Amino acid sequence: MAEARITPRAQDYAQWYQDVIQLAGLAEPAEVVRGCMVIKPHGYAIWEKMQADLDRRFKETGHQNAYFPLLIPLSFLAKEAQHVEGFAMECAVVTHSGLKSVDGKLVVKNELEEPYVVRPTSETIIGHFFAKWIDSYRDLPLLINQWANVMRWELRTRLFLRTGEFLWQEGHTAHASHAEAQQEVRRMLDVYRDFAHEVMAMPVIQGVKTANERFAGAVETTCIEALMQDGKALQAGTSHDLGQNFGKAFNVTFQNQAGVREHVWQTSWGVSTRLVGAAVMAHSDDDGLVLPPRLAPIHVVIVPIYKSDTERAQTVAAADKIAAELRSDGLTVRVDDRENVRPGEKYYEWERKGVPVRIELGPRDLQAQTVMIKRRIAPLEPNGKPRKETLPMQDLGPAIGKVLDEFQKFLFERALEFRTKNTVTIDSWKDFTDVFADQGSKFVHAHWDGTAATEQAIKEATKATIRCLPFEGQGPALEPGTCIKTGKPSARRVLFAKNY
Amino acid sequence: MAEARITPRAQDYAQWYQDVIQLAGLAEPAEVVRGCMVIKPHGYAIWEKMQADLDRRFKETGHQNAYFPLLIPLSFLAKEAQHVEGFAMECAVVTHSGLKSVDGKLVVKNELEEPYVVRPTSETIIGHFFAKWIDSYRDLPLLINQWANVMRWELRTRLFLRTGEFLWQEGHTAHASHAEAQQEVRRMLDVYRDFAHEVMAMPVIQGVKTANERFAGAVETTCIEALMQDGKALQAGTSHDLGQNFGKAFNVTFQNQAGVREHVWQTSWGVSTRLVGAAVMAHSDDDGLVLPPRLAPIHVVIVPIYKSDTERAQTVAAADKIAAELRSDGLTVRVDDRENVRPGEKYYEWERKGVPVRIELGPRDLQAQTVMIKRRIAPLEPNGKPRKETLPMQDLGPAIGKVLDEFQKFLFERALEFRTKNTVTIDSWKDFTDVFADQGSKFVHAHWDGTAATEQAIKEATKATIRCLPFEGQGPALEPGTCIKTGKPSARRVLFAKNY
Repeated sequence: MAEARITPRAQDYAQWYQDVIQLAGLAEPAEVVRGCMVIKPHGYAIWEKMQADLDRRFKETGHQNAYFPLLIPLSFLAKEAQHVEGFAMECAVVTHSGLKSVDGKLVVKNELEEPYVVRPTSETIIGHFFAKWIDSYRDLPLLINQWANVMRWELRTRLFLRTGEFLWQEGHTAHASHAEAQQEVRRMLDVYRDFAHEVMAMPVIQGVKTANERFAGAVETTCIEALMQDGKALQAGTSHDLGQNFGKAFNVTFQNQAGVREHVWQTSWGVSTRLVGAAVMAHSDDDGLVLPPRLAPIHVVIVPIYKSDTERAQTVAAADKIAAELRSDGLTVRVDDRENVRPGEKYYEWERKGVPVRIELGPRDLQAQTVMIKRRIAPLEPNGKPRKETLPMQDLGPAIGKVLDEFQKFLFERALEFRTKNTVTIDSWKDFTDVFADQGSKFVHAHWDGTAATEQAIKEATKATIRCLPFEGQGPALEPGTCIKTGKPSARRVLFAKNY
Repeated sequence: MAEARITPRAQDYAQWYQDVIQLAGLAEPAEVVRGCMVIKPHGYAIWEKMQADLDRRFKETGHQNAYFPLLIPLSFLAKEAQHVEGFAMECAVVTHSGLKSVDGKLVVKNELEEPYVVRPTSETIIGHFFAKWIDSYRDLPLLINQWANVMRWELRTRLFLRTGEFLWQEGHTAHASHAEAQQEVRRMLDVYRDFAHEVMAMPVIQGVKTANERFAGAVETTCIEALMQDGKALQAGTSHDLGQNFGKAFNVTFQNQAGVREHVWQTSWGVSTRLVGAAVMAHSDDDGLVLPPRLAPIHVVIVPIYKSDTERAQTVAAADKIAAELRSDGLTVRVDDRENVRPGEKYYEWERKGVPVRIELGPRDLQAQTVMIKRRIAPLEPNGKPRKETLPMQDLGPAIGKVLDEFQKFLFERALEFRTKNTVTIDSWKDFTDVFADQGSKFVHAHWDGTAATEQAIKEATKATIRCLPFEGQGPALEPGTCIKTGKPSARRVLFAKNY
């Protein structure tokens, strides 16, 4: 393992991503299960951090968790025409129950009367139950969230970013008016943005999807879009205004205050384990994983430095004492006192795993009552080596806490600066195609004539897609112009990029 | 809803259980998905409490969470002969991907080369990955846990206790020696016992299953068994010694310290949403759900009592203030200030939902700076009404905390007393059949000749099964005797009961 190398980003970005994940022990392709992955402990611990923070935000905004069946009757999917069209090809289908042995080979036994699909998303099955639970305006709003696994039989898969099965949360809400549902759509998109900014240290742009990129069955899809280090966009979360589409398909009605029966207005919104991939891509470097402290399963690793057995006993004891103190300050700490591994190898390994702060603790530190710390990304000294800092042992917890806060902020600002540098406003087709030539991509604000045909033509010519129509203030001023491709009138600029 | 009644236990215990669940809003049958259920918010909140506490205990004992694929290649299941035999009939099988429309009807599209089963449990797929991850004794022990959904196509289902899909955790560990694996099996069974006693307030007996009741593929299954109010036993958790069975089936080997390659020794252990059903059955009464405070999603409900608008404003303001104070002491509090519902209806509703403590707050209380509290189960006053207690408003948080601790302890002791009264040692076949006549059941310690044939004969005659061979000290002294059914020699008494 110590010999394994990470392919540099400049050499092969896709391979770099895989190497970072593999060497940090985040996940691996399942191989024996088509398009699926195994989320390994270090990767799952990042997802748990995400879950805990998001779950708190969902509950603070009045949502309750529930759990609906994994299997959905085939006929349910067909009830909303756009929905089934969007998901039909991606469904895994359960057709049988039971197995039997025939000529020594295990085969399926009982064919089901009606097949079930493994949920690709749960609007349909939840719509069915909403119809049973909702009767009056007093039952509204109904604000439900589900943490679950879902399956989509994707052709091309990539660890975390696109997998046959993934873990996610799906919010499903029902409201008495369209205005209230629209507020919910925006409220939850803001929760996602806050989470991306505050926890993932990943700046995002909020906006509305074009009809072409809309969730199948929604009247409007809003999203948060992040820029990755290769200039490609990553859709990090979506929040959908479902209008009355599912309300009508599943006959979800309520009696309003005037005593009249109406269909409910619904929303749904979700983020998934894709966010782990986003965190990897947003911050990591050629030395491996870089994690914002608020996502890091381990905040601090302490490496005792010694030459003799006496020194070992002293530094390990001191490391354990410091670890206990830091833990009482709410930090997660690992003391790496393995005997058969040299300090340099330990540094290398924990860097690859994205631990934000390393403490080196030698006999001299004990004497001086100080510790040497190294941030996962540190400014370079004049001699070209990364800067190390000396901190007093006393009150180390708060001091490390401050370092972690600084590091969290540093990553966000670095990502924001990168995005600023890689966001352009373009008005000529030549400049546009230049940006997207070969592997190139950036966030490009450009005019578009508003038609699906032009959107498609641009995609075919450049592989760039419209990521969103950014909300006011999250892109250039909303001004009319002429389409970059057709020269026809355009109401506003939209955000283009190649995407994951 | 307010008119709905709970069937008394004495009248129809099974119906009572369903009524309690329905009127507390814990879950409902999915109906459209065979044998499955929807876990509603109040039920899911109980499961979240269980998850949080168990997860902490698993991590404290050195386990890490991970996530493995939902789908398992059919061929994997066949690799362990007993395992496939145990699970073959219960599998849901994915045979196709994609859907297409034929004559306006949606049908399956692409047949898979190899079908997948939806995991009924994950020993096989995890065995496959353990083989990739384990190479040396240095990689051991490997201590993994997974929180997941699983499916078992059961014939007869019952909310929480037995459902087609359920949520659970499954621990999977690999060790360098059988002794170490056996220690792990027992360590986790102790974690389950501690959780049952400390959190669920539900006393359990630990023991070993007979070969007949063993997990398919294990060399030994240990369990915790609880006694329900109808005298039936409920298996609340299991911890399995898998020996080298899966190690051999999936070729999971390691190089030991002497440089020799050996198969690993594995364990697996799990508890599920069945525990929510156990909590319901263990404590609830004819007024509805009773929950131990450590499982209660809401600890305290405050009901303001008033006659005028002025009184309403005053009592609701005071209730909000008290709620804020209690919340800062870590309690979950609900102020029920609904205008269109009378206090008596509110009491009734929150009792059915199992809230451990109710606070009634009227104008006189404000004047006296006291609150009136009522425990969910309170001793009766001489006039036949449940006792209410008056507590000073000052320092109410710690006082309520003490009441909740007392209530937690009270429920455990009440359940223990019930179990003591309903546990008997029996030496004659007549007495044995009397206990199990009709709907009857108790915990019965009786001698058994150790053969599967006798075990089966006893089951056929009485419907009672051997729940376990209790560990030393958790049943009568281990002494030889003669089998209750055959009169043949018996090494020790074992625990019989009808079971869920």
